[in-house]
Amino acid sequence: MIGLTPFRSGFAMSHEFDLINQYFAPLSQVDSGEVGIGDDGAILNCPANHQLVVVTDTLIAGRHFPLNTTPYDIAWKALAVNLSDLAAMGAKPAFYSLALTLSPQENNQAWLKSFSLGLKTLSEQAQIRLIGGDTTQGPLSITVTAQGWVPSGKGLLRSGALAYADIYISGALGNGGLGLANVLNQLMPGDVGYCTDAIAKLNRPEPRLSLGQALLAQNLALAAIDISDGFLADLSHILKASNLAASIDYDALPLSEALIAWAKKQSDSLFGLNTGDDYELCFVALPDSASAIKQLADSLGLRLSRVGQTLPYTAEGERLVLRDSAGNVMPMKRLGYQHF
Amino acid sequence: MIGLTPFRSGFAMSHEFDLINQYFAPLSQVDSGEVGIGDDGAILNCPANHQLVVVTDTLIAGRHFPLNTTPYDIAWKALAVNLSDLAAMGAKPAFYSLALTLSPQENNQAWLKSFSLGLKTLSEQAQIRLIGGDTTQGPLSITVTAQGWVPSGKGLLRSGALAYADIYISGALGNGGLGLANVLNQLMPGDVGYCTDAIAKLNRPEPRLSLGQALLAQNLALAAIDISDGFLADLSHILKASNLAASIDYDALPLSEALIAWAKKQSDSLFGLNTGDDYELCFVALPDSASAIKQLADSLGLRLSRVGQTLPYTAEGERLVLRDSAGNVMPMKRLGYQHF
Repeated sequence: MIGLTPFRSGFAMSHEFDLINQYFAPLSQVDSGEVGIGDDGAILNCPANHQLVVVTDTLIAGRHFPLNTTPYDIAWKALAVNLSDLAAMGAKPAFYSLALTLSPQENNQAWLKSFSLGLKTLSEQAQIRLIGGDTTQGPLSITVTAQGWVPSGKGLLRSGALAYADIYISGALGNGGLGLANVLNQLMPGDVGYCTDAIAKLNRPEPRLSLGQALLAQNLALAAIDISDGFLADLSHILKASNLAASIDYDALPLSEALIAWAKKQSDSLFGLNTGDDYELCFVALPDSASAIKQLADSLGLRLSRVGQTLPYTAEGERLVLRDSAGNVMPMKRLGYQHF
Repeated sequence: MIGLTPFRSGFAMSHEFDLINQYFAPLSQVDSGEVGIGDDGAILNCPANHQLVVVTDTLIAGRHFPLNTTPYDIAWKALAVNLSDLAAMGAKPAFYSLALTLSPQENNQAWLKSFSLGLKTLSEQAQIRLIGGDTTQGPLSITVTAQGWVPSGKGLLRSGALAYADIYISGALGNGGLGLANVLNQLMPGDVGYCTDAIAKLNRPEPRLSLGQALLAQNLALAAIDISDGFLADLSHILKASNLAASIDYDALPLSEALIAWAKKQSDSLFGLNTGDDYELCFVALPDSASAIKQLADSLGLRLSRVGQTLPYTAEGERLVLRDSAGNVMPMKRLGYQHF
């Protein structure tokens, strides 16, 4: 029970946790005047005229990732889901701490080597530094608390959307859900074509950090959120926080042909809108930002789809309607996402 | 799998986790221009000319606290152990996030009410604000990541000690260990006098925040650490980080008569030096700070005992020796602490 420092949890485990020091201490980096792993806590410099953004997420084995997930992918995902939250605020990643609970099954060289490599790869890519953590013994779970910086007063919130603005989604929807169906062996042999890279999308989501920071820097987004629990559920958070309603055009949603075919086979046209683990951004922008957003999409090499419009909310009206190509309202059974 | 915001973990649990919102959202506080619970992450102001201190600690049920601990005390301890790390760095507490994994057993009004009251009481006392968290379903565990501020370059480290300086301990040693022996029913009826308040010390440690901040503000401590794993083990961290040795006077240690009697009954004169959960501070100060430290003890109403001296470390010599009243070196079997 020690601060960030020591990557151990009491002397009872000191031998095992020497391993952890071996694998995690090298991921720690400090700037001049800072203190990283090796004391009661980390001490970090703060850039002038910025605010600190703090996010935290826990992954539980068998709940947030399938039990047969590789240690590399578990580490990637534990960090990625936090980076995705930073992205949604437009924050530049700075540092993170890791609270790692391991059972004896994971406490070995091979597991820790793979896990630490997953962390290292994504943390280098995202330019975020490990500054410490705590390790304990118990059923496998990983809590990352990640921190970033936004220029003061500029952070992207859920609550800033206005009516008659455009709703955008980055990338594609439903790949996380398709990957999960694949991992859970729900796909038939003939279905494999649906999801060539869906398992990779499930296990190694790419947090949209560049997009979030660009939206903030160019002042393009009125509101933003990351899509972790399913597009419809997450958009609803923006709508509630901004006191708005919305109309979504089904045909404008970034669903692949394969995904639409799979959704049809499942008789669930909302598959991909309700499934989690996409880690794309959903944001709201004024119509006159459309050309700048198109340019941004080109410069990032990232699809940004306008999928609908915000509307004033009235107590009598629906919060969120989905329209087919004929403009008819489609039925929506459930908003949200069930962990498997 | 959501950022700080929502105190829920997927829609599957939304009903249950409405409870959590009910109990935790009221603990959130933000200053002007800040964002707390309710978005992808929290956004926080940074005071000028300060550095951020980050600490994190996980408590696992049955490992870091006995299974029959009250929810109030579990919450208190989860926050207190982190505050103790902040205290050891001389930091002023600022805010914390809570990653709470609950089994169905804890997910009820009575448990959450008691837990949130424990959090509220200590967080008000320590003036630290809850800014968000994540809740998941699984075996009970609690990870707190706490943050504080130190004036830039002034944080108390383990590595700053010098030779021929004084080693101090706040409060008393061994009460955490005695409390644990009591909880584990190792005490006999006649022993109860040993530990009138030891269970309270075990369950509701008082982080020495005022002491840490005063040591920093008055520039009195060369190095500091909190005593969480046992005095001998934690002092060793200072000695290693500062490349020093030390000699400790057993008779100068702040052990109560009752504790000495209990240690004798156990035939373990190191009981109280090796047991964990005291959450006192150990610090090293120059001899000419002695009168200022005495004044500080008086003003805080807190015992500060000079228990030994730092010495130069040589590869041939012992890192740490313990001397009895005759000046003879006492044998030391084990440095450290076993979680029960």
